[in-house]
Amino acid sequence: MPVLAQLTVNGDRLNRSLFQLADIGRLPDGGVSRVAFTADDLLAREQVKAWMVEAGMTVRLDAAGNMIGRYAGKNDEAAALATGSHIDTVPVAGRYDGCLGVLAGIEIVRVLHEHNLRLDHPIEVIVFTDEERSVLGCKAMAGEVKEPPEYYARLDGTPIQACLETIDGDWSKIATAKRDRSDIAAFVELHVEQGGVLEHEAMPIGVVDGIVGQYRFAVNVIGRMNHAGTTPMSMRKDALVAAAQMVLAVNKIGVEIPGDQVATVGYLSVSPNATNTVPGNVDFRIDLRDLSQEHLEGLVSRMKDEFSAIAAATHTEFTLRETLHILPTLAAPHIKDTIKQVSEQLDLPYMYLPSRAGHDAQEIGRFTDMGMIFVPSQNGISHSIDEYTTPEECAQGANVLLHTFLQLDKAYAIASH
Amino acid sequence: MPVLAQLTVNGDRLNRSLFQLADIGRLPDGGVSRVAFTADDLLAREQVKAWMVEAGMTVRLDAAGNMIGRYAGKNDEAAALATGSHIDTVPVAGRYDGCLGVLAGIEIVRVLHEHNLRLDHPIEVIVFTDEERSVLGCKAMAGEVKEPPEYYARLDGTPIQACLETIDGDWSKIATAKRDRSDIAAFVELHVEQGGVLEHEAMPIGVVDGIVGQYRFAVNVIGRMNHAGTTPMSMRKDALVAAAQMVLAVNKIGVEIPGDQVATVGYLSVSPNATNTVPGNVDFRIDLRDLSQEHLEGLVSRMKDEFSAIAAATHTEFTLRETLHILPTLAAPHIKDTIKQVSEQLDLPYMYLPSRAGHDAQEIGRFTDMGMIFVPSQNGISHSIDEYTTPEECAQGANVLLHTFLQLDKAYAIASH
Repeated sequence: MPVLAQLTVNGDRLNRSLFQLADIGRLPDGGVSRVAFTADDLLAREQVKAWMVEAGMTVRLDAAGNMIGRYAGKNDEAAALATGSHIDTVPVAGRYDGCLGVLAGIEIVRVLHEHNLRLDHPIEVIVFTDEERSVLGCKAMAGEVKEPPEYYARLDGTPIQACLETIDGDWSKIATAKRDRSDIAAFVELHVEQGGVLEHEAMPIGVVDGIVGQYRFAVNVIGRMNHAGTTPMSMRKDALVAAAQMVLAVNKIGVEIPGDQVATVGYLSVSPNATNTVPGNVDFRIDLRDLSQEHLEGLVSRMKDEFSAIAAATHTEFTLRETLHILPTLAAPHIKDTIKQVSEQLDLPYMYLPSRAGHDAQEIGRFTDMGMIFVPSQNGISHSIDEYTTPEECAQGANVLLHTFLQLDKAYAIASH
Repeated sequence: MPVLAQLTVNGDRLNRSLFQLADIGRLPDGGVSRVAFTADDLLAREQVKAWMVEAGMTVRLDAAGNMIGRYAGKNDEAAALATGSHIDTVPVAGRYDGCLGVLAGIEIVRVLHEHNLRLDHPIEVIVFTDEERSVLGCKAMAGEVKEPPEYYARLDGTPIQACLETIDGDWSKIATAKRDRSDIAAFVELHVEQGGVLEHEAMPIGVVDGIVGQYRFAVNVIGRMNHAGTTPMSMRKDALVAAAQMVLAVNKIGVEIPGDQVATVGYLSVSPNATNTVPGNVDFRIDLRDLSQEHLEGLVSRMKDEFSAIAAATHTEFTLRETLHILPTLAAPHIKDTIKQVSEQLDLPYMYLPSRAGHDAQEIGRFTDMGMIFVPSQNGISHSIDEYTTPEECAQGANVLLHTFLQLDKAYAIASH
């Protein structure tokens, strides 16, 4: 039996699992399409369940359809140390987003199981339901599911109740999926970065500071439609000229204000959108993310002030409507420290960074200690058939996850005894 | 028989004609739809022909389907003094655009005819074919029709040859429609302004300096599509941020450079146009107009320079393609002077202004002396059911047209004897 400090994941086995799972829902061009609740999603869940059982776990489903593999601890009454992610994908995806977190969780249990090792705490490896669209699984676990159920209906109109039935969930009992700190002591998620920072900085490990909060706004700029030939410049109320200034104001808030925020106008639509017509109306949407809610509120306030000044100067009017607000979730400082120390011990360069994309950990972190480990995404690409993380990087991330669990087992054992 | 200087149009009769013509193709909400070559266009042409005949004119059609009413002169071999405009409309139009010019032409002939008066020169009142889309009639008269005929096919694919047959034109003989200075000595068109300048300045009469030249460009800005959450501001190539700066550069060229130019981005389209995606690509179109071709060329050159600087600063690329170029047409100075003097004699305040919309006079002015008279458009609105010019303003414009013809008859008579 090896010393715990010498344990290591089987990188080949982990990467074989990633490729095997990607065969389910595989697209002709090599991508993966495995949208939640489809036949391929169900097949993939069966495959993952079989791997969990093979690794010595018991498997249960909660009312939200979350699949929970449990590897008993020496003290099986203790709160669990949990990991996991999701295996559903966007309509055209790669092999790594979500799947790496689930399969690395299974891999660390395989390692313990083949060495007949158990931690003091039980380990849970969780496959969260439908992360890519409704985010229902982790929200149910956090007790954050909204009424009415119509809110979660699929794009094709299928009710969420029917979707949950296909994976043996039960909407009427969704409240029972709620967990708390007393039965999940900590949750650590391994995920590909989905951005290009780690690759750019040549860092194999990212210690995630937290998952950013997010605001979205829909803006409507009202000018006056006019003939582009016959209306002198001085008599115009050009909604696009106003909107262009607002787009640049949003970008300036991202670029010039100190901080790590991102600020984007990704959607913009002009009306009537004819070459020879001064635009009368422009709709656009803003996406604003940062780790600090206080900082975000400052940015929003500044943005509104700048929009008012632009509207006054351009003789236009505007409405601004908040369409989304997600609070940031910070990683627990002691879990960040543990990931950092483990990276150092494994001789893996690391850096701190925020997660600017949403993850299951964002919801789980609302009720218990949370941490995340990132590994690089080649060219920063995700949600694409070109998504790629090398086998070595996948194994490095899984090793950091394994040793973080070994450390946390000691840390929480001391705290709870 | 009244002294010529005391002649005046019958304003009631003119406005009755305007309303009668607007009954052909009338929309339920009060607008007019009389697209060229439709049944309603044909009916309207029959009505106008009847009025021409009633006013003592002979009527002929040329190969381009232009309907030419001719009121013989005392010296009928002399080159004609011509007026006219069009009676086809955009799909949703008002009563005045084009029609006022044709019906005012008929009205001045009615006045001469009812007083048994003839000018030295023959008068021609011309209904030009399809001004609103192909501009085919006046182009044929200027010898500017392009090959192949497919260029003029309708939106629904109908060949222009078939269209011309419906109005007794003949594509194969279109070259015969060409006229020159030896048979049209001068062309004066009365038209509603289609902009708000005269109303804003409280001027019943506009003396048109000329019809602006026009450039149109299609611009494609190429950035890099990225996740709006996971891509730090410093790693972006945001095509919309670049395009927004270009939109403002175009507007600045319109507003800040001395001159009467107008510069507009009326069309802009973002790709992939999703709230959480940094835009990878933006298409937009530019419309640039001025009376001076030299000034226009300077603006275009400056615009290209600014676009290059913007692309460099935003790490984007762009392509710029010219999609339209129409040369400006200046009004003949002595016709402008005549319109000015006539306005003064009739005690009608006037101002000089360019026409920033295209008109049949733009093509006719390429081969003979041209002038245009504008009357106000309420709220600057045209191409709309809300297009409106008061009966009094219509009559004032027609009176200026009548007396301009009386003056030009003397001016050209002296020149040609």
